[in-house]
Amino acid sequence: MDADQLVKKVTQATGFTHSAGVEVMLAQPGHTILRLPKKPELLQFNGFFHGGAIAGLADHAAGAAATTALSAGKVAVTVDLHVNYLAPADTLAILAEAKVVSGGGTISVVSVQVFNEVAGAEEGSVRVLCAIATATLRAVPLPSSS
Amino acid sequence: MDADQLVKKVTQATGFTHSAGVEVMLAQPGHTILRLPKKPELLQFNGFFHGGAIAGLADHAAGAAATTALSAGKVAVTVDLHVNYLAPADTLAILAEAKVVSGGGTISVVSVQVFNEVAGAEEGSVRVLCAIATATLRAVPLPSSS
Amino acid sequence: MDADQLVKKVTQATGFTHSAGVEVMLAQPGHTILRLPKKPELLQFNGFFHGGAIAGLADHAAGAAATTALSAGKVAVTVDLHVNYLAPADTLAILAEAKVVSGGGTISVVSVQVFNEVAGAEEGSVRVLCAIATATLRAVPLPSSS
Amino acid sequence: MDADQLVKKVTQATGFTHSAGVEVMLAQPGHTILRLPKKPELLQFNGFFHGGAIAGLADHAAGAAATTALSAGKVAVTVDLHVNYLAPADTLAILAEAKVVSGGGTISVVSVQVFNEVAGAEEGSVRVLCAIATATLRAVPLPSSS
Repeated sequence: MDADQLVKKVTQATGFTHSAGVEVMLAQPGHTILRLPKKPELLQFNGFFHGGAIAGLADHAAGAAATTALSAGKVAVTVDLHVNYLAPADTLAILAEAKVVSGGGTISVVSVQVFNEVAGAEEGSVRVLCAIATATLRAVPLPSSS
Repeated sequence: MDADQLVKKVTQATGFTHSAGVEVMLAQPGHTILRLPKKPELLQFNGFFHGGAIAGLADHAAGAAATTALSAGKVAVTVDLHVNYLAPADTLAILAEAKVVSGGGTISVVSVQVFNEVAGAEEGSVRVLCAIATATLRAVPLPSSS
Repeated sequence: MDADQLVKKVTQATGFTHSAGVEVMLAQPGHTILRLPKKPELLQFNGFFHGGAIAGLADHAAGAAATTALSAGKVAVTVDLHVNYLAPADTLAILAEAKVVSGGGTISVVSVQVFNEVAGAEEGSVRVLCAIATATLRAVPLPSSS
Repeated sequence: MDADQLVKKVTQATGFTHSAGVEVMLAQPGHTILRLPKKPELLQFNGFFHGGAIAGLADHAAGAAATTALSAGKVAVTVDLHVNYLAPADTLAILAEAKVVSGGGTISVVSVQVFNEVAGAEEGSVRVLCAIATATLRAVPLPSSS
């Protein structure tokens, strides 16, 4: 299974990211872009994306980026996640782009940028930074059942 | 509106926390306990709570704790959130307990403990720490429409 | 070598903590208290302890707490450190108290509280919180030369 | 006083950064590079830079970058600092490069990269990433005496 197949499988299986509607835009070893379209279940009282939705997207993008940079049979689980919220996430979709800063061994560190998508991908990529995150992850053996 | 009413209103309105099924167990000025029962939409591929669900619950508990410690007409918005994942969140519900460490002014800092609920509240409180978080928040005027 | 001996050895050897003047007040497995008296080399332009001195003390206290909770022959090295500065560190000494939240294995997580010492230890412990920190550490084999 | 003068004044005054020997390589509004040559007072027991020295350099670089992006008469004080240690800082000098990600108002967020300097500046800039940091800062009025 290559990076793209692995990330799509984990993201689109039942669960948090499937229910949220996370889309895999890019999945290469050590580098992922995920997209999350707005819907009522993801918002806070003021109509912007909830901090939890943003953190969840960033966490998932980081985990995917770190895992695809590991050797087969290992998965990166998040040890800690630090998110800085810079501006309201108030557009019709947000994007999280994750890049491995240091990885491949026991500990991976991944930087994530989260963007408001100002114009859709089909119209060209216009995006404005609304959060940044740093995740520290640990490589563990992939459970054999998955 | 007192602390309990305010937190219940914001949590149970439509949106992320309502859809997730967050329950308000305690809401006093500067101190909140939220509960999140397990359901498929909150899980990762291995059947445990997704990091995003945990981060979202922690963020919401922190925001509620900080806001209820502010003077009326202000709301605390998260500037940054740091979550340490300590153990799998693999029970039927998780609990987030947030306490303001420093607050009341422009900047609030809130410590959050997230627990696996081992035995339900009705049977006595048996809970095991599975994550800790620290949130930094900023006080802003509450939008007049809410 | 017991916890107290190990921590004193590492802290009072030549280097950063020796030069800064860090004192070991308590060193038990998983729990340390370090003290740092004020001196010009530790201050910022306004006469308060510099953020780097506070971070360094917190980091060292966390490393000592985590290492003393490991089996012999292992040392905990910091993977990441998150410090929240709550109030100016403007007294004659600061104290850092570190407690292991989760440890003993590959990854340790340590919570640290940093206090302004308002009255000296000899007069009773009066201290006011000025910063909190969370450190994530990784156990590695202790270099054989130490 | 322009950005360069301000940063040099604050860095080279008596105190933590002066004693440590921090050099200002670049100071533009929102962007700074600081350099810290190795000396015994900055090291840990294994001869590498102590985490506190790295955190202190990163914090100072972030504060300088944020302050120089503010209007005159304001200074940015660190609210929280998150440092990820990626590799041993084991060369003859380290460099911290800080860039404001979001700033100018009440809250600034600054990303910092810390490098091992492999070849000195005079021989061309060869540097290898050894830590990253994110700082959140708050603008406050500059004390009139400074």
